[in-house]
Amino acid sequence: MKILLAAMAVASLAAIPSATQSSFADLRETALATFEALPSATPTVSNNPITPDKIALGKALFFDPRISSSGVLSCNSCHNLATGGDDNRETSIGHGWQEGARNAPTVLNSVFNSAQFWDGRAEDLKAQAKGPIQAAAEMANTPAQVIATLKSMPQYVEWFNEAFSDEADSVTFEKLAKAIEAFEATLVTPAPFDAFLAGDDAAMTSEQKQGLALFMDKGCSSCHAGVNLGGRGYDPFGVVEKPSADVLPKNDKGRFLVTNKAEDSYVFRAAPLRNVALTAPYFHSGKIWDLKQAVAIMGRTQLGEELTEEEVGSIVAFLDSLTGKLPELAYPTLPPETATTPRPVSRNVGK
Amino acid sequence: MKILLAAMAVASLAAIPSATQSSFADLRETALATFEALPSATPTVSNNPITPDKIALGKALFFDPRISSSGVLSCNSCHNLATGGDDNRETSIGHGWQEGARNAPTVLNSVFNSAQFWDGRAEDLKAQAKGPIQAAAEMANTPAQVIATLKSMPQYVEWFNEAFSDEADSVTFEKLAKAIEAFEATLVTPAPFDAFLAGDDAAMTSEQKQGLALFMDKGCSSCHAGVNLGGRGYDPFGVVEKPSADVLPKNDKGRFLVTNKAEDSYVFRAAPLRNVALTAPYFHSGKIWDLKQAVAIMGRTQLGEELTEEEVGSIVAFLDSLTGKLPELAYPTLPPETATTPRPVSRNVGK
Repeated sequence: MKILLAAMAVASLAAIPSATQSSFADLRETALATFEALPSATPTVSNNPITPDKIALGKALFFDPRISSSGVLSCNSCHNLATGGDDNRETSIGHGWQEGARNAPTVLNSVFNSAQFWDGRAEDLKAQAKGPIQAAAEMANTPAQVIATLKSMPQYVEWFNEAFSDEADSVTFEKLAKAIEAFEATLVTPAPFDAFLAGDDAAMTSEQKQGLALFMDKGCSSCHAGVNLGGRGYDPFGVVEKPSADVLPKNDKGRFLVTNKAEDSYVFRAAPLRNVALTAPYFHSGKIWDLKQAVAIMGRTQLGEELTEEEVGSIVAFLDSLTGKLPELAYPTLPPETATTPRPVSRNVGK
Repeated sequence: MKILLAAMAVASLAAIPSATQSSFADLRETALATFEALPSATPTVSNNPITPDKIALGKALFFDPRISSSGVLSCNSCHNLATGGDDNRETSIGHGWQEGARNAPTVLNSVFNSAQFWDGRAEDLKAQAKGPIQAAAEMANTPAQVIATLKSMPQYVEWFNEAFSDEADSVTFEKLAKAIEAFEATLVTPAPFDAFLAGDDAAMTSEQKQGLALFMDKGCSSCHAGVNLGGRGYDPFGVVEKPSADVLPKNDKGRFLVTNKAEDSYVFRAAPLRNVALTAPYFHSGKIWDLKQAVAIMGRTQLGEELTEEEVGSIVAFLDSLTGKLPELAYPTLPPETATTPRPVSRNVGK
C-alpha cells in the first residue's frame, strides 16, 4: 500500500498537500477495501432474534448490580456506557476489591468482534455475558442465585415472559445472556470515519485523512481491519520484537490458555479500535495510558517500524475519527426486591 | 387523632366500610394538616440558584466514578437512581471494599430533608456531597485530587464555566458540591399519595387510605410528617422501649457524635418515608429487611404499641402509596480523560 501514499503525493507529513476530490475518492476506495462502516440498523446475532422487549430487558440486566452476589457490581461497572464502555483502569475492581487479570475491553460495538475477550474464548456476546457474572474476582455469583434473584421480582418475570413469549420457563441464565446480548448489540457508535466512508469528505480533518492513509500504508490495517478495525483475528504481541515485560507480563500467555497450542503463546486478539481515544489505558495489560505511546509500541513490536513523532501524531489523529456517539439511553428503573430476593453477600468472598 | 378513625367508622380493619366522599375529604384535610404534597416545580435551595446548566453538570458529576480515587465509585454507586436512590445493602461498599457504618439513605426527595445523614451532621445537600467523596471508607479522595481530575478534562471546565458563568475560578470543590445539589434537587418522585392530597380520591386504594388514617391515629405521623414524612427532626431510637442490640448496635450513638450532648445518645433522624418500599433494608443499621417487621418495631419502640398483623399490613399498604416516579434521566456521556488526568489508585487504601 506504499503506492497509496505516493499517489496522494504526501511527500511530507508536516502539511497535507492540496488534496483533490479524486484523491479523497482514492483514499475512500482503498479504505473501503479494508474497513467497513457501521451498519445503520441494529445488527443481527446468531440464534437470538433481537426485539425491543429483549433489548429493554437486557438494558435492565446490564445496569442491575443485583446480578452480582454483593449487589454492588453491574455489567456497567466495568463497561461503563458513560465513559466509553469501559472503566478506565488498568484492570477492573471486582468482588472483594479483587483486581482482574486483564484490561476491560469496551462493550461499544463489541457485537462486531468475531469473538469476545482478549483471548477470544467466548464465541459471542451471549457466551461472554455468562463469564464475569460467575468469575470469583468479578461478580462472584452463580447462575442459580442469579435466577433466584430475578424470579423473586415479579416485574422481571413479566419482562422475561414478554421478551421470550414463545418459550416455556422464560427466566433462565441462557435467556439472561441472550437479553444482555440483544441490548449490547444496540451499543453502536457512528463516528466521523463512518461518515467519511459513506462519502462525506468533510467528516474527517486533513490530518485524520492523512493518518488513515498512513495507518494503511504502514500496515496497521493488516490486523486492525474490518468494521471494528480489529477484533477479528489473533496475533502474537510482539510479531517483530517482544514488548517489555511490564507491558507484556510473563504470566499471561494469552490465547495459549484457550487453545493450549505453543504457537498461541502470548497471542491476543487484535484490539478493536473504535472509541480507542476514550478507552485508555491500553493493551491487555492496561499498562500504557498514552495513546501515542501505544501506537509507537505497536509500530515497533508488530511492524518493526520506528514511527516518527509526526507519524504517531498523524495516526492518533485518524484514531480520533473513530470516536463515535452512542444512542441516547434512558437510565432504567429496576424492579424492587421482595421478601424472597436473596440478600447481598455482606462482606468478602466466602463470607 | 383517635377522633378521625372514629369519624370514619372504621370499626374493623378487616374491611373498609363504604367510605363516603365526605370521609375522604375529612381524611385529606387531616392529612394536609400533617403532610405536604411534593411541589410541582424544582424546589429552591439556599445559596445556590438552580439552573439547567448546573443540573446537567451535577448529573455528570453524580454519575462520574472518577470522583473517587479508585475510579470505581460514583455517587450513584450507593445512591443508585435505578433502585430507589440507595444500594439495597445493610451498609455500603466503599474504597478497598470497606463497609460503611450506616445504611445509605435514599437520595430521592432528599432535598426536602431539613438536614442530611442519619445524624443530621450536614445542613444541606451541598454540605452532604463533600462527605462521601473524602471519607476513607467511601470514595477516599481529596478535594485537590478531585479538582485536578476535573480540570484535566476541558469539557468539564467548559461545563463548570457555563454553570457558574458569573464567577471566577469556576472549577472548585464548593461548586462541584453546588452542582450535585442542583441535580439532586430534581430527584423528586410524585406518588399516589400526592395525587390523593391534591384531591384525587381514586389515587389511593381503600386499604392505603385506611392505612393513612391508622398511620396518623397511632401517632407514626408525629415524627414522620411533612413533605417527606420524616427527615425533619431527631428522636431517640427507642422512645418507649430500646430495640435489640442487633437493630441498634451499641457502638453507634447517633447524633451524640455530632452534638456531644448526653440526651442525643442513640438519637437519629426520623427516616423520611417516601419510596420506603424500595429502600430495604431499614434503620440506620440496615438490619431489618422486611418493611412489616420495621413497622412493628417502630410501633413497639417509639410508640409503645403492639400493632396487630392487620394494622401493620394496613400501614405498609399506605407506605406503598409513597412509592413515586422519577423523571426520565438520560444516562450521561462523560468527558474523556486526558494525559494529565490523575490515574486511579491501583489497589487498596494507601497504595
